[in-house]
Amino acid sequence: MTPDATSRWEVSPIGVVHSPFRSQEDIPRQPAFAGSRATGTVMVFARYTAGLADLEGFERIWLVCWLDRAREPRMRVTPYLETKERGLFSTRSPNRPNPIGISPVRLLRREDAVLHVADLDLLDGTPVLDIKPYVPRIDAFPDSGEGWIRHRNDLPKGPGHEAT
Amino acid sequence: MTPDATSRWEVSPIGVVHSPFRSQEDIPRQPAFAGSRATGTVMVFARYTAGLADLEGFERIWLVCWLDRAREPRMRVTPYLETKERGLFSTRSPNRPNPIGISPVRLLRREDAVLHVADLDLLDGTPVLDIKPYVPRIDAFPDSGEGWIRHRNDLPKGPGHEAT
Repeated sequence: MTPDATSRWEVSPIGVVHSPFRSQEDIPRQPAFAGSRATGTVMVFARYTAGLADLEGFERIWLVCWLDRAREPRMRVTPYLETKERGLFSTRSPNRPNPIGISPVRLLRREDAVLHVADLDLLDGTPVLDIKPYVPRIDAFPDSGEGWIRHRNDLPKGPGHEAT
Repeated sequence: MTPDATSRWEVSPIGVVHSPFRSQEDIPRQPAFAGSRATGTVMVFARYTAGLADLEGFERIWLVCWLDRAREPRMRVTPYLETKERGLFSTRSPNRPNPIGISPVRLLRREDAVLHVADLDLLDGTPVLDIKPYVPRIDAFPDSGEGWIRHRNDLPKGPGHEAT
């Protein structure tokens, strides 16, 4: 059956983020350069910890999160530090119809059900819906054209971007 | 309130994928090299189309999808073409506690509510939960260490990976 605008599914957390950030304003603009200020943990619930095996080898992991403090979305938004309105889906605003965030955090180490991570840009208490390994051959397109965001120079030229 | 394993939220599609793929076996292992075989469209529902403005400038977009034909997850899985079991969260298996996929597809063009995309790895009829611009300075870590997947040579050294 083809899904339509009335279709619904339920999501449920597999764990929770613990971070130093209590509000959106605390989150550094360039988490990859914020060092120990942007470190924290992901506590994974007991029923899911067996699924964490073999994650240690990966330098980065995707945290797919439910941005539980997001506000009602509007389809046109004025991004932070911008003056011109943009279509919501051309921005990374947290206020979206389904407030799902994807964060490629650095995995420092794992202690059983606890993942220690860096380059974190998530609020303390954020529910985690999924964890995936970051695989450059699937996920990394360093030369991909940036659209309206290209003029912004407050975004990191982060680790691994030396060639661009 | 801190989320726990009993917390629940609802997601609802913003659009639907139309692709040539009717079953998992149809999906090319290397969508970035499958050319016109891996092209399709995303039809966005009317209430959300105003949010698509300004997306055109981006070469790639993230499709955050509900993998509606995923099966019950198991915490340990034997990945395709592998013999050793791995922890689920160290794999990209679609069968996950919250079956959410993230696909960095190439945006060919937009016609109002229809996005024409390439490098598609999603089944026909897959519900789309969110669309985000692909921003290399946020998303691309071409040298990130790959863990157990590193020995696999059937993954693409795709566009933008020439330096690795």
